[in-house]
Amino acid sequence: MLILSLLLADEGMWMPEQLPEMADTLNEMGLEIPAEQLADTSAQPLGSIVSLGGYCSASFLSPDGLIGTNHHCVSGLLQVNSTAENNVGETGYLAATRADELSGGPGARVFVVEAIEDVTEAVNAKVRKWTKDGKRYELVERAKKELIAECETQPNRRCQVSPYYGGQEFRLITKLEIQDIRIVYAPPDSVGNYGDEIDNWMWPRHSGDFALLRAYVASDGSSAPYAEDNVPYQPPSHLKVSAEGVQDGDFVMVAGYPGGTYRYRTSRNLRFAHEVRYPEYIDFIGTAKGLMEAESARDPEAAARLAAPIGWMGNSTKYFTGNLENFETTDVVQRKEADWAETMAWVESDRVNTKIYGPVFEELDELDAESERDFKRSMYTESALWMSSLLSVAHDGYRFAVEREKPDLERDRGFQDRDAERHKAGLERMEDSLWVPADRQLLELVLTRHKALPPEQQAAPLTAWMETHGGLEGSLTALYDEPSLATLEGRMATLEMDREAYESSDDPWLSLAVAFESYLSEKRVRDEERKGAMLRLMPLYMDALKASREYVYPDANNTLRVTVGHVKGYSPRDAVWYRPHTTVAGMVAKAGEDPFDAPERFVAEAPNTKDSSYFDENLGDVPVNFLSTLDSTGGNSGSATLNSKGELVGFLFDGNYEAMSADWLFDPVLTRSIHVDARYMLWLLEVEGADHLLTELGVTE
Amino acid sequence: MLILSLLLADEGMWMPEQLPEMADTLNEMGLEIPAEQLADTSAQPLGSIVSLGGYCSASFLSPDGLIGTNHHCVSGLLQVNSTAENNVGETGYLAATRADELSGGPGARVFVVEAIEDVTEAVNAKVRKWTKDGKRYELVERAKKELIAECETQPNRRCQVSPYYGGQEFRLITKLEIQDIRIVYAPPDSVGNYGDEIDNWMWPRHSGDFALLRAYVASDGSSAPYAEDNVPYQPPSHLKVSAEGVQDGDFVMVAGYPGGTYRYRTSRNLRFAHEVRYPEYIDFIGTAKGLMEAESARDPEAAARLAAPIGWMGNSTKYFTGNLENFETTDVVQRKEADWAETMAWVESDRVNTKIYGPVFEELDELDAESERDFKRSMYTESALWMSSLLSVAHDGYRFAVEREKPDLERDRGFQDRDAERHKAGLERMEDSLWVPADRQLLELVLTRHKALPPEQQAAPLTAWMETHGGLEGSLTALYDEPSLATLEGRMATLEMDREAYESSDDPWLSLAVAFESYLSEKRVRDEERKGAMLRLMPLYMDALKASREYVYPDANNTLRVTVGHVKGYSPRDAVWYRPHTTVAGMVAKAGEDPFDAPERFVAEAPNTKDSSYFDENLGDVPVNFLSTLDSTGGNSGSATLNSKGELVGFLFDGNYEAMSADWLFDPVLTRSIHVDARYMLWLLEVEGADHLLTELGVTE
Repeated sequence: MLILSLLLADEGMWMPEQLPEMADTLNEMGLEIPAEQLADTSAQPLGSIVSLGGYCSASFLSPDGLIGTNHHCVSGLLQVNSTAENNVGETGYLAATRADELSGGPGARVFVVEAIEDVTEAVNAKVRKWTKDGKRYELVERAKKELIAECETQPNRRCQVSPYYGGQEFRLITKLEIQDIRIVYAPPDSVGNYGDEIDNWMWPRHSGDFALLRAYVASDGSSAPYAEDNVPYQPPSHLKVSAEGVQDGDFVMVAGYPGGTYRYRTSRNLRFAHEVRYPEYIDFIGTAKGLMEAESARDPEAAARLAAPIGWMGNSTKYFTGNLENFETTDVVQRKEADWAETMAWVESDRVNTKIYGPVFEELDELDAESERDFKRSMYTESALWMSSLLSVAHDGYRFAVEREKPDLERDRGFQDRDAERHKAGLERMEDSLWVPADRQLLELVLTRHKALPPEQQAAPLTAWMETHGGLEGSLTALYDEPSLATLEGRMATLEMDREAYESSDDPWLSLAVAFESYLSEKRVRDEERKGAMLRLMPLYMDALKASREYVYPDANNTLRVTVGHVKGYSPRDAVWYRPHTTVAGMVAKAGEDPFDAPERFVAEAPNTKDSSYFDENLGDVPVNFLSTLDSTGGNSGSATLNSKGELVGFLFDGNYEAMSADWLFDPVLTRSIHVDARYMLWLLEVEGADHLLTELGVTE
Repeated sequence: MLILSLLLADEGMWMPEQLPEMADTLNEMGLEIPAEQLADTSAQPLGSIVSLGGYCSASFLSPDGLIGTNHHCVSGLLQVNSTAENNVGETGYLAATRADELSGGPGARVFVVEAIEDVTEAVNAKVRKWTKDGKRYELVERAKKELIAECETQPNRRCQVSPYYGGQEFRLITKLEIQDIRIVYAPPDSVGNYGDEIDNWMWPRHSGDFALLRAYVASDGSSAPYAEDNVPYQPPSHLKVSAEGVQDGDFVMVAGYPGGTYRYRTSRNLRFAHEVRYPEYIDFIGTAKGLMEAESARDPEAAARLAAPIGWMGNSTKYFTGNLENFETTDVVQRKEADWAETMAWVESDRVNTKIYGPVFEELDELDAESERDFKRSMYTESALWMSSLLSVAHDGYRFAVEREKPDLERDRGFQDRDAERHKAGLERMEDSLWVPADRQLLELVLTRHKALPPEQQAAPLTAWMETHGGLEGSLTALYDEPSLATLEGRMATLEMDREAYESSDDPWLSLAVAFESYLSEKRVRDEERKGAMLRLMPLYMDALKASREYVYPDANNTLRVTVGHVKGYSPRDAVWYRPHTTVAGMVAKAGEDPFDAPERFVAEAPNTKDSSYFDENLGDVPVNFLSTLDSTGGNSGSATLNSKGELVGFLFDGNYEAMSADWLFDPVLTRSIHVDARYMLWLLEVEGADHLLTELGVTE
């Protein structure tokens, strides 16, 4: 199964342990360090790779805990430090000395993987063949929580149990949690987010999408929350930064935490996404984004607070739109159908196969049909919790109150003692991100759409709550007339309330949370049965896929992966070839109005790049971004891009528009990852006069 | 002066007689036939190159007078054959037999050059150093007319005297005028004009912009108007059509009639175009085009009649807009200023130079200033004559009447006996192109803009005429209430009227024509003085330019030129490379709504191009269009593109948007010509089942 062609290796988000088996292919592709070294997560380079907690990857770049990641991964940290008068995101920030490094706030985290252990047996120990689906889920969850709890008895460790190959395997991952993260350098938005939504997913790209952070720990070396006398963390290893860069055709690899792919979903899933799910998302999120943009236009403080959600909403709608375009213009749908037909033929080709796998595929189909039927109700209820921060505060508080009544290990994930601290940090951070008028408009949008569903598709407790609160208008007035949760004090008070206090309260937020939870808890029972069924079915499903197709790596699941490829351009359409590097001159050629308002200090230096140490003779300029053929997805943002020697040559920050459906199917001809060239970072630091950082990065003395 | 680098040879619209001197360069570039052969306008290939009369070039492709040119060069001929019910332009036309070939109408012409003779001495024979400017112009014009008249004593010949190098040299060109031109094959608009305005000037391009005509003559071989029993003309030579095509890097050349370039204009001229002239044109022509489009949307008959003017107005505004963009994004303005500074430095570097050339440059500057002051009045009067067909009929009639009072040779050019036949044909052709409601709106636009000028900038006779006709509204009502000239009979009547009849007429069109002419004739006196001054100054100006700069070819002037270059892509912006060939698959990928409504019969055949004889192995498809580095401009449309052996490999039909200002300054990095690949023509004919034409073109038996 691991006999890979060179072409195939570009596709694949490899678990580190898989790499030694691929040594020949990797060497042939151009890797110059032993493949075994790449499997060692405690050694260089993988020992330097960290996670920012589920949404971004990063890496250590100096012995003093200097961290490199994407600019768009630190927008929350910049926001915490921004006000209307002093918008650090807009101006950028360079700490002149370590004392000037800005705290990223109580929610900022860096996770350093310390161990990865196969726990498949332990997770499944109590599950029997005849265990009912709901119970199956409960037993597996319980086993996972026990493993995590035991793991987290180690101080300052966060642990997770992740499923691989659709639950055929489980791994326990132990991570050091560093809690004091500071901003060392962030370029201005007009560099770090150059081209913003217009250029998002696009090539040619000219984004300086990188930032430098530093991890701090207590002076005894233990992880601790922000304190003035904390000291820089000394990582076990850090990456060497290459000032040489990579050329067209060079080998590159990326190590990071890809979030999720759907490479093995059913063709029915793709059809539903194509015809219903994605079009609905585009309409719904697009509308929400429009509301927030109008709000931002009214008030610069709103603009600062809403920049992050507007950003990801823009990114999401473009992602879904791009997927739909790909479904139309490429053969991804046809290929997925063909793959599916192949698997079905395999199932039907043999009596034993048919007997074992036939029912599996049938049951999966029924489960798909059920969730398709429930799609709109789920969307227009659950979205309320991420669209309205106030509702999520109220609802989280209630869930903590309910779960606190159980022993810790029996509580639902996310509401255990281990989660309380992070939850509290989130409530504090909201002080800098909440914008009540936008919160109201978004909740109004959700409630309006929910109300427009046919009665049988509505969530009954929510409908009933709204009726007793004066309908849509009355409900919104009641909720947003001096909402208790808009103050930090009011939010903190939810931490102290028990179930009884919630259920007897007159506060509309609290009673709305109870009504929501009454619907959600019921849905959760159904969902847990479904998840239990998936735990039973998916291993068989994956077996059938493995038997009927070439299958070599598990879908992305937010765990450490390595992907490999080459620097290479592509042809987006007839007679057009995209070269794999952009240049500073190209950045300047685009300069103009926002979002292309490149700062004058960089534009002015552009004609002098030939005098810079980071000038590329072949390009005749300092490079800005580059393309590679390697496989990546959301979560990979901020990942270190490494050359054949394992040295840092860039940061991955995007995929390309022409292959947005790569999460469904990797197309080697069109799929490209987009990286910030490390030489652009070095040139920007040079222009900024950040000599101390260039020295710390090891490129100057 | 003729020691050329390879780079320089791409720039230059060479007179055939210049080519033998360039033999070494041409050979080095890849020419495989003797350069001497290229200088012989009666031998192959130049002997096959013809003009369609000032706006397009063409070439003979068979011994039976088959002619290849651009689709957009025959739109007038197609329009003559189109009605709302049967729009030949829209459907395209394939004559199944010679009997089915459609007459292009009385105005269609093909001109075959028979002789080119230097007549500089004869033109200047009577001019003395002290001759006054107005008189100088008159003497030169008179000499030219005498040369032409003598030349045209040969039957069916049209002759012209063209100035070269700003009037340093004059050449008399003798052309056979063929009057019976028929349509053999025109692809549908949706092929010949694929992408229309959206793709106009753009790359990648997928236009089938070619058409096939046939020249007919009387059975005795003499040129004659259309008659059923005319026979195909037997040209002295015709081009061999190559089915092999050209590859990236191959040598190509183009032979045709480039209309006009401004490579040697003053930098003041460029500044005025940049800041005033082009922005005004864009606004004015853009407004006119909008009016015609609204009219077209109301009535399909209007759409058919207005398609041609809307097309050229779109082309013009895009040309001016593209020029303005180039002025901003490239260094053309700076380079022009630098060239100018160099010439000025040369003038000032030497006392003799300063004495001779200083006053020349001063006087040219004054002449420039004067025409800048008069720019808006000229624009909002003269434009009336090409915006309103009815006014041009009335005015032409009056001018013929006035000029008829003089001996033929003293009449103004365009109003001699030799011009009467063509004028009459134009009046007939108007039967198929006139659309009175549009004519009214365009004249209203001109008169409104004229009226808005400050009083001292208006044309007094026109202002007075409008005042005596009830102002703007009254004038328009009077003119368009059953206008006599809207009928063929009414138009033909103008041919019979003398000056007296015009000047005493109550018809508002006739009196408006007299008023217009009263302003124009006065202006003409000033213009003739100006032209006389230019005849005196330009030879000295060109001497200064020749002395101070590298200077090798005269500006384009609608005479036969050869330009050379290579098939080559270009980079329109950072990280993007445009490859030099597009493909049928690329055409299909664009297919969709108008103007990309590719006919189903071609789309359906696209997957089978590999079975076609015109399949290109390197491209993996049949090519559609290609790029070359050679120098071209308006008038070159329809020119034969030749390979290194002088065989036809395509038809030039456009320049590229990124180098629209090439008429001012040729930029070897960005300037490209766009050609229809002859193999696309052959493939389309193959799909159409036009086997008889493929045989006649010599590519099949």
